[in-house]
Amino acid sequence: MASDAANVRHARREDVPAILQLIRELADYEHELDSVEATEAKLLETIAFAPSPSPSPSPSDSCTSTNRDGLPHQQTETEPTSPSKPARCLVLTTPAGSPAGIALYFYNYSTWRARPGIYLEDLFVRQSERGKGYGKRLLVELAREVVAMRGGRLEWSVLKWNEPSIKFYESIGAKMMSEWVGMRVDGEGLGRLAALLD
Amino acid sequence: MASDAANVRHARREDVPAILQLIRELADYEHELDSVEATEAKLLETIAFAPSPSPSPSPSDSCTSTNRDGLPHQQTETEPTSPSKPARCLVLTTPAGSPAGIALYFYNYSTWRARPGIYLEDLFVRQSERGKGYGKRLLVELAREVVAMRGGRLEWSVLKWNEPSIKFYESIGAKMMSEWVGMRVDGEGLGRLAALLD
Repeated sequence: MASDAANVRHARREDVPAILQLIRELADYEHELDSVEATEAKLLETIAFAPSPSPSPSPSDSCTSTNRDGLPHQQTETEPTSPSKPARCLVLTTPAGSPAGIALYFYNYSTWRARPGIYLEDLFVRQSERGKGYGKRLLVELAREVVAMRGGRLEWSVLKWNEPSIKFYESIGAKMMSEWVGMRVDGEGLGRLAALLD
Repeated sequence: MASDAANVRHARREDVPAILQLIRELADYEHELDSVEATEAKLLETIAFAPSPSPSPSPSDSCTSTNRDGLPHQQTETEPTSPSKPARCLVLTTPAGSPAGIALYFYNYSTWRARPGIYLEDLFVRQSERGKGYGKRLLVELAREVVAMRGGRLEWSVLKWNEPSIKFYESIGAKMMSEWVGMRVDGEGLGRLAALLD
């Protein structure tokens, strides 16, 4: 549906082909296209989606279920997250309605504050749609969600060589966490660590 | 309950005073004691706990509820995580039964792999209990959980000046993510970013 402005909404299952395409464009930008193991089926399994719009909305059609607090809720909400489905995805669509950017994120935790927050795993705006404020728009939406959930912080990581992005992030109030370094165990290392004390 | 060996289990609500004490000891070690805003009440709200052991277990007492997949489950499971309660906590107890270490973590996501994983927010073993392999034990338990959930990676961050920890992490198979730097928006910056396009 076309409108006058870009729109940001939670991803629906039917957005998955466009999301995978944008993930591949992002990987190409980061010189990591060969590392993309994501498929449409895997994305469908691991992202908590918003419901698809009903073609003929009718109150009697609306399906109710029970959420984890035991309260009934309409299935107009985004699916709950879980350990096997921890990701949420915002999709930015152009005024013409075409997906131009995504923000893939999950919920993190600050021990010092004992408060939740959001970790932005990947932010990407298609090359041809740059310079229109779409990246900023997606970050603002995420900051709004952190504020709404009374969360403590919005975090993400950036490649050190990506100076244009770092300057942009600092311009909107982000601080570089230069005193920290990430550690990762993956691939065969994960099985070796899991079996280390067997 | 005393046993011959150290034990690792999911935190229960009654562990919260010990967890807060260990968080304060960790903050002191990182020269950040003034930054601790966590309280027992906040930890109770934001960690998904395991149920407390029943004093007189009886099958007819066991309360069933419906989990998010609609399947009935006994309330012997750890509470589900959610955006406002994203954290889980492992507690390591000494052979005498006293809490000596914690691993506070949440579920993360790899876009490239479209797979979930675990991010270890804080790992701490009390000073007087160091050198007994307890830190390794907690990391192994987390790696086992990642493998069991068919996850992609176990990640955490470390202060760059903490060379003994980095050497230890590398010895158990972790790689340093030196090409990345973290960005963070928190405090007043969060409200400013949320309102940037208003």
